[in-house]
Amino acid sequence: MIRFFVSTQDIQGDIITLTEENLNHAKVLRLKVNEQVLVCDGDGLECLCKVSQIFDDEIILTVSERRSSVSEAKIKASVYIAFPKSDKLEHIIQKATELGAYEIVAFPAARCITKIDAKSSVKKLQRWQKIAHSAAEQSGRGVIPKVRLLSSYAEALKDASKSDLAILFYENEKATTLSMALKEKDFTSISILTGSEGGFEESEVAKAINEGFKICTLGNRILRCETAPLCALSAIMYEAGEF
Amino acid sequence: MIRFFVSTQDIQGDIITLTEENLNHAKVLRLKVNEQVLVCDGDGLECLCKVSQIFDDEIILTVSERRSSVSEAKIKASVYIAFPKSDKLEHIIQKATELGAYEIVAFPAARCITKIDAKSSVKKLQRWQKIAHSAAEQSGRGVIPKVRLLSSYAEALKDASKSDLAILFYENEKATTLSMALKEKDFTSISILTGSEGGFEESEVAKAINEGFKICTLGNRILRCETAPLCALSAIMYEAGEF
Repeated sequence: MIRFFVSTQDIQGDIITLTEENLNHAKVLRLKVNEQVLVCDGDGLECLCKVSQIFDDEIILTVSERRSSVSEAKIKASVYIAFPKSDKLEHIIQKATELGAYEIVAFPAARCITKIDAKSSVKKLQRWQKIAHSAAEQSGRGVIPKVRLLSSYAEALKDASKSDLAILFYENEKATTLSMALKEKDFTSISILTGSEGGFEESEVAKAINEGFKICTLGNRILRCETAPLCALSAIMYEAGEF
Repeated sequence: MIRFFVSTQDIQGDIITLTEENLNHAKVLRLKVNEQVLVCDGDGLECLCKVSQIFDDEIILTVSERRSSVSEAKIKASVYIAFPKSDKLEHIIQKATELGAYEIVAFPAARCITKIDAKSSVKKLQRWQKIAHSAAEQSGRGVIPKVRLLSSYAEALKDASKSDLAILFYENEKATTLSMALKEKDFTSISILTGSEGGFEESEVAKAINEGFKICTLGNRILRCETAPLCALSAIMYEAGEF
């Protein structure tokens, strides 16, 4: 079923209005009167609706059933990514959303080649949030993961360490596996940090240890920077009993 | 360390010759005399080598140490993919290689939009094998996964069912998770089948059941056809103790 995310002000009792991008999307999909659609408030509420009226500038839906979204993961997994080159971050945002990430947070690290200045960051964040939005619609999620941008590595460590479990993946770590870290303690929130193309510097790893991070390996093969977070997230969701 | 895959005839005792594509690659990387490189025979043997002589048409290496590759997974995971559209298969081949797949097998299914005729298949296979080759080099593998192409769904089922465990992922399966299937029996080889954009038809799922397949869900979120096999492969490698 087609799924739309609307803002709370578009929901008025049992009437929901599709406007702007949702309206355009609905027109592209040639939505018809009486067709059933799902509308999410992006915060876990799902409304089963029927299209009642189609106007040029809005589409009116009537709610027939309200329910909690069943597609959200039981754990909150925050995915922290050191800026990769070009369009890799967009790929990660799309896939991490499908895989059930709670949020995606980009940050600079010593070996990042890409720099994001304050000027371009607003536009980039809008674009990234849009990618998460579409991926959430397509994958049937009840919540759109928030995409955030932090200005320093120190900030990323501090932010990520608020989770029950914070893990940094390091290619030179050989002993501690993700499995060991996940099985050591119960968690309902988890943060994972992965590096950009060049990985992390030793001093960065030391700082993470100081902040209480577990340093883990993802195995004997070298994963690209866009593969590592998605591999880890898949395994975490598996371990958490999602599939 | 830079890694090359050579064919067995390029290894003559303790002398290894880099020619053709390896030669080009070495020149792009500006390989220097006395530099250390790793050479794999693509079958699990790794030779630590030193560059001894650089000629226009070949580069001569001397083997200083021979060892078994440590980067191969303990289980053999075969990834069967119903043809997806455009470049998605190439993406899957690259990532599945990084994630440790033993082989990647493409096949047609009822809802596949892409058709591959015998004429174009030779060229396509060469291209796909090259992608697996590069990804194996980059990820430090000791074996290049074979990329194969089957001509029918029935053939794919028959082929995949030779593994200790054969799993088909189906979006309408709600009860049996991957975790249940993996924990039910010991396996050293596993085949996973995932659909193209449109998924599998019910009749196809029934045929798989007849061939002894387990039908599993990958959770409550709808994964794109290029995400599903990589998510499953990550979880399988995790369950198998790879990381």
